Amino acid sequence: MKIAVDAMGGDNAPQVVVEGIEQARDEWSDLEFVLYGDQEQIKEYMKNDDRITIVHTTEQILGTDEPVRAIRSKKDASMVLAAKSVKDGENDALFSLGNTGALLAAGIFIVGRIKQVSRPALMPTLPATNSPLGVNMLDVGANAEAKASYLQQWAIMGSIYAHDVKKIDKPRIALLNNGTEYDKGDSLHKEAYQLLNNTESINFIGNVESNNILAGVADVIVTDGFTGNAALKATEGAARILLSELKDALLNNGIFTKMGAAIVAPSLKGMRQMFDTSQAGGAVLLGLKSPVVKAHGAADAKTIYYTVKQIRDMLQNDTINKANKYFEQMSEEK
Amino acid sequence: MKIAVDAMGGDNAPQVVVEGIEQARDEWSDLEFVLYGDQEQIKEYMKNDDRITIVHTTEQILGTDEPVRAIRSKKDASMVLAAKSVKDGENDALFSLGNTGALLAAGIFIVGRIKQVSRPALMPTLPATNSPLGVNMLDVGANAEAKASYLQQWAIMGSIYAHDVKKIDKPRIALLNNGTEYDKGDSLHKEAYQLLNNTESINFIGNVESNNILAGVADVIVTDGFTGNAALKATEGAARILLSELKDALLNNGIFTKMGAAIVAPSLKGMRQMFDTSQAGGAVLLGLKSPVVKAHGAADAKTIYYTVKQIRDMLQNDTINKANKYFEQMSEEK
Repeated sequence: MKIAVDAMGGDNAPQVVVEGIEQARDEWSDLEFVLYGDQEQIKEYMKNDDRITIVHTTEQILGTDEPVRAIRSKKDASMVLAAKSVKDGENDALFSLGNTGALLAAGIFIVGRIKQVSRPALMPTLPATNSPLGVNMLDVGANAEAKASYLQQWAIMGSIYAHDVKKIDKPRIALLNNGTEYDKGDSLHKEAYQLLNNTESINFIGNVESNNILAGVADVIVTDGFTGNAALKATEGAARILLSELKDALLNNGIFTKMGAAIVAPSLKGMRQMFDTSQAGGAVLLGLKSPVVKAHGAADAKTIYYTVKQIRDMLQNDTINKANKYFEQMSEEK
Repeated sequence: MKIAVDAMGGDNAPQVVVEGIEQARDEWSDLEFVLYGDQEQIKEYMKNDDRITIVHTTEQILGTDEPVRAIRSKKDASMVLAAKSVKDGENDALFSLGNTGALLAAGIFIVGRIKQVSRPALMPTLPATNSPLGVNMLDVGANAEAKASYLQQWAIMGSIYAHDVKKIDKPRIALLNNGTEYDKGDSLHKEAYQLLNNTESINFIGNVESNNILAGVADVIVTDGFTGNAALKATEGAARILLSELKDALLNNGIFTKMGAAIVAPSLKGMRQMFDTSQAGGAVLLGLKSPVVKAHGAADAKTIYYTVKQIRDMLQNDTINKANKYFEQMSEEK
């Protein structure tokens, strides 16, 4: 199993990327890595080149770059060349911490989608109060427009993923909607409900409202990319602001409060751990011919290590091809 | 100014309703109230009947009732009779703490919408980190489907409201979208952007993403009811879970942590105050012939007092008719 790594993406590249990859390399002897990036910089941080090849690249896609344009114009960027190597079959998966939009574009236009999948979907793992496995949600923004049939395909891919990577026997699949009753939603979501309810290969448990995303009522939540994007960002925004207000309340209210804060700090760490989904890896772009995974730009070496584990699970279980085969079979039956 | 009050809605009705209404009555001598509900129960909690009339009702809409059916079948419910009194011109505004869906239905089917408004919209006030006035968002769920022209009308009504009730000179109006650039979004939101950008009567500041809803970057955020519902509930859900985890971390981690928690408690209270929008009143159903306002079912007397203030501001400024006149003028110009 060979993983193409965009070593130049993320806030602390390439140092943290190299560190995480070496940790993963030392753990799993069945993995090989090809690091795309500045050879000098990568070598500076690399302990040894066992099962790691470097492909020197001279360009880099920035967080501020316009995604599709960047992918097309920066032909020698680490992300673009890493994506091409996957398309050409040299490597089996693509991993990047870089510009999300650009990685989506690289996944769709370079790696390419599975023929039977209408639209690829972006699927992160969100924290869940009742499970360290968290909850997967897709699509959170790879597509601004959606059809009910896309949501059905995303549900099937999400279910296969949760089974293979999260080792859940019958993953509970829910539809994000504006009410729990079966007849809720706009026409898109009403139709999606019916399609999901009639999809035998998944364990559809009905609608979930977005105030319960983190409550762990489902293993995979299916949504259109516009609503999913809004729900994900609202969740992130509320959490960010609450945690920042909490920090402010504890640290900027005089020495007495600060002392109390020192006392409660270890307990608050446990709380923060609940919201730490780094063990789940990165966000997967499902529906492509090979695994394409995005880790947070601020990810540390440990998160990169776990993202490699996630990619390895997908490769070992042939997760991508299962969805592929399922859709091929479905289209033959029609 | 006469306000029709559904005295039987909410978790602590009618006690808390009567208390809040009496506080408001004692504050503003230009207000009269008609309380719809069980006469015996209301009288039990009422100090004096100065400017308060009771209309005895025998039925009640429950939180579990199916909204539209309840409005149609429970003809003697406090909410229904209160709504009818507004429609008939006996009262000037409708106030309830009851079933949100039923109040939406009562507003739309009984009070009736302004002729020129295509669809009424539900607009709550959310907390904002930088302003005690919070941020208004509409529509958060009165409509599952939307057109760009609806969003334009909602923006205009929201702007008039923020001007009249929140006393903001040129309210900043933003569109909730999946990116900040002008060309972001699905076709609905792209079209809405153009319409809003060409609406001279509002101060349109562009797109806002839902991770910034609480950051106070806008005074009014316009969204379709499906996305708005998802963003609002995701915000509420994330806040609820974080605060519950925080409480758990502080109180269930041994006596030492509990002592620390007692020390930091006063500072955390300040944090909770930021998220307290009770002074902003309730959620307004905009686009109807009269103000229809919904307070939380769990609202206390103080929140009810502030919701009456909010209704009084709308009545005094003729906020509803301003929108009405604006749309009439627009339709004449066409």
